[in-house]
Amino acid sequence: MLTIKRLSHDEARILIDGARLKAEEIGIPMCIAVTDESGVLIAFERMDGGKTTSVVIAQDKAFTAAAARKATHDYNTVCVPGSLAFGIHTEHDGRISTVGGGLPVFDGEDVVGGIGISSGTPQQDLDCAQAAIEYYTEKTKA
Amino acid sequence: MLTIKRLSHDEARILIDGARLKAEEIGIPMCIAVTDESGVLIAFERMDGGKTTSVVIAQDKAFTAAAARKATHDYNTVCVPGSLAFGIHTEHDGRISTVGGGLPVFDGEDVVGGIGISSGTPQQDLDCAQAAIEYYTEKTKA
Amino acid sequence: MLTIKRLSHDEARILIDGARLKAEEIGIPMCIAVTDESGVLIAFERMDGGKTTSVVIAQDKAFTAAAARKATHDYNTVCVPGSLAFGIHTEHDGRISTVGGGLPVFDGEDVVGGIGISSGTPQQDLDCAQAAIEYYTEKTKA
Amino acid sequence: MLTIKRLSHDEARILIDGARLKAEEIGIPMCIAVTDESGVLIAFERMDGGKTTSVVIAQDKAFTAAAARKATHDYNTVCVPGSLAFGIHTEHDGRISTVGGGLPVFDGEDVVGGIGISSGTPQQDLDCAQAAIEYYTEKTKA
Repeated sequence: MLTIKRLSHDEARILIDGARLKAEEIGIPMCIAVTDESGVLIAFERMDGGKTTSVVIAQDKAFTAAAARKATHDYNTVCVPGSLAFGIHTEHDGRISTVGGGLPVFDGEDVVGGIGISSGTPQQDLDCAQAAIEYYTEKTKA
Repeated sequence: MLTIKRLSHDEARILIDGARLKAEEIGIPMCIAVTDESGVLIAFERMDGGKTTSVVIAQDKAFTAAAARKATHDYNTVCVPGSLAFGIHTEHDGRISTVGGGLPVFDGEDVVGGIGISSGTPQQDLDCAQAAIEYYTEKTKA
Repeated sequence: MLTIKRLSHDEARILIDGARLKAEEIGIPMCIAVTDESGVLIAFERMDGGKTTSVVIAQDKAFTAAAARKATHDYNTVCVPGSLAFGIHTEHDGRISTVGGGLPVFDGEDVVGGIGISSGTPQQDLDCAQAAIEYYTEKTKA
Repeated sequence: MLTIKRLSHDEARILIDGARLKAEEIGIPMCIAVTDESGVLIAFERMDGGKTTSVVIAQDKAFTAAAARKATHDYNTVCVPGSLAFGIHTEHDGRISTVGGGLPVFDGEDVVGGIGISSGTPQQDLDCAQAAIEYYTEKTKA
């Protein structure tokens, strides 16, 4: 029997809080999604003014980061014509995201969830995702 | 130019709080989704133990209730073979929900959003949605 | 070589005008779609206040009526469990509509397009579709 | 409660009129779609001879421009392999359009809708979208 580690809802909310703080700091209302280790949504927040399209894109970034255990910007790097990974972005009905802003959430060596951010530039989205991870790490350390 | 009223994120969280309180009272971990008046997600919470399939179902219930301005159980009533509305449940890639647990959120005469609940029986889901509306009404009255 | 008769855009607009007049008379802001004989959209109008979900539903009713050359309420009649036509409503990704409010548009014996209405009850939708056909017939007769 | 500005149907028709005039000038029968601020269709016109595939493509361009608040040709610029935004075009079931011809419609600082054009080259589509915005701005200025 396997035992799987998975973010709780309270932990997902900590990640969202960290992302929102950074989003407020840079002045971009973001869509913020947190999934479990299988890529299934735990918590979502669209800040007032977040883009409509980003509701799905944020979820897809989190899905990709968690379920493929890879930052979306790392997929971006290898998803270039001629690379053997090119084309991955059309998989799962196009839900595999190669756009910056999705990060896996680790507990030690294990991926326990994913966070995806959308509404800014991919770099802004990634900055908020990174800030969320740092905030979460700080808040949950023993 | 039209002027449209839309739930803010803070108001969406009040609805989620109200739904969660009822869910805890009846002991069923729920998936809770709140959309804007067009059916686009604002906030989502999967309580620890909420069902994986319910992540989508809760969102679809909220989408239907908001964007069609009708409780999903009211669609259920008319979506019976021989009724002229039968078949509505397959529309929007099957996202039009006829399963109890989705309610429109009103501001006076206007639909300003929708709430959808899933993981219990449809009646339990509906009870939590109704409790959310009551909680929201109480918290936001002048 | 086949020669196909198809509604022109101007004829499609006449149908929309007829539907809108009836919608205004009964006081329901409707979504109104007109397709060609293959079910491909020619013209669409969402009256101010028409439902968001009805944007797709109106198009699907028109698609069904034109491309299947059958009123959606006629499909409704036969789409009951035990009838050999039951299940037709899930075809084409659920776009085959069995909800009242879609009518084929004829030129003599030929289906040259379809009209679909949504936002009211199925009977109200059907009334507007019928009014559109009558208006069109009156306006285009020699 | 948020207050959102949204194009009315009459305003959407002005945009379509402006696009059609330009399309007639350059001699290309176009598909023209106008959505609200959330990317939901308000009005659509397929000029006689407009391409069948363009029925969907025009709608997707308008959806993208409105709901992502960005011209589709601006997405085109950044959606190149190696850019952090590459892959955005597969999102929303591929409905995020990176093909020229979709523009957001502004009221001051606010995006209140989107227009999408298809059937010509992307540049011709964009020219018609731009002409539509100019026509709309002229017709609606105080």
